[in-house]
Amino acid sequence: MAATAAPLTPERILEATEEVLRRHGAAKATVVDVARALGVSHGTVYRHFRTKAELRGAVTRRWLDRTSQSLSTIVTGTEPPGEKLRHWLAGLFEAKQHKAGDDPELFATYSVLVDENSDVVDAHIADLTGQLTTIIQEGVKAGEFTSADPARSARAVFDATSRFHDPSYAPHWSRPGIETAFEAVLDLTLRGLRA
Amino acid sequence: MAATAAPLTPERILEATEEVLRRHGAAKATVVDVARALGVSHGTVYRHFRTKAELRGAVTRRWLDRTSQSLSTIVTGTEPPGEKLRHWLAGLFEAKQHKAGDDPELFATYSVLVDENSDVVDAHIADLTGQLTTIIQEGVKAGEFTSADPARSARAVFDATSRFHDPSYAPHWSRPGIETAFEAVLDLTLRGLRA
Repeated sequence: MAATAAPLTPERILEATEEVLRRHGAAKATVVDVARALGVSHGTVYRHFRTKAELRGAVTRRWLDRTSQSLSTIVTGTEPPGEKLRHWLAGLFEAKQHKAGDDPELFATYSVLVDENSDVVDAHIADLTGQLTTIIQEGVKAGEFTSADPARSARAVFDATSRFHDPSYAPHWSRPGIETAFEAVLDLTLRGLRA
Repeated sequence: MAATAAPLTPERILEATEEVLRRHGAAKATVVDVARALGVSHGTVYRHFRTKAELRGAVTRRWLDRTSQSLSTIVTGTEPPGEKLRHWLAGLFEAKQHKAGDDPELFATYSVLVDENSDVVDAHIADLTGQLTTIIQEGVKAGEFTSADPARSARAVFDATSRFHDPSYAPHWSRPGIETAFEAVLDLTLRGLRA
């Protein structure tokens, strides 16, 4: 640890891990590479993350959380619920488009990590549908939406917009006509919630 | 042709091609295998389908058409448009579940063919969204649905239900909870169309 100026926090280890993943890809990245990038021994890394699997799970969670954290500011905002829902879904689509388009190699690397961390993905989806549930509950309270079961409606909205956030559709997100298709699904979905 | 009792129709060639695909898989099936299965020379097969690619395209179209043909009877039926739409979407999901679940190897083989025949797939999707457009137009005429642009609404309904007909989701179709998820999306979608 003497070689590093700043204290070795989990966040710094995860930053270094992302850099190592970016350089070596999901298959080749090792804990030794991460330790080397930080100027520490791999034992030091293991003091924070007990196994390589735990480290890979944590870096995947951090990557997914970046999206849900930026969306949560829409949930707590002051717009009317209909606008909130529209901006939230557009924000999710835009965030995914950027992740896939701006750095395709890192996106491919994280797609591998996502496939091997289904519990982390389940928690991420629960987080996102929880945010949607909050917006729908607010809309029902305001008399703008109708829903007998906001959690069920939230899951339906999430599933109905899969084409615009599920990574398996990433190759479609840069094709012509995708924004038009998204707007049409958004309109249909919002009409389906209106009181 | 002397060896075969029935005349050699394109339909018989396509039936034999499906059998050959079932036995050998998409990568290994050849026109010679198809000709042998029919007891004819491969030149005879080429008289009906000019290239191997044309034969593979035709057998893919036949496989996809089976679904659209069975759904078209719902479109021309006498149910109210809302019921029609519900049964059409449930019929599409059920047909896909059966194709994927009853014969997973043939489904995997056709998934390869679908990937190499994007024009055939585009025509199939146009056929299906055309059927949806007809149902929505009927619903608008009957005052049951509202839509300024039935073709756009049809595409939105098709996209919103992707999770329940797009082959890339096939591994999800046998999981617990999938029927509940489908019903929730169906309810939201139908509410989105109601006048």
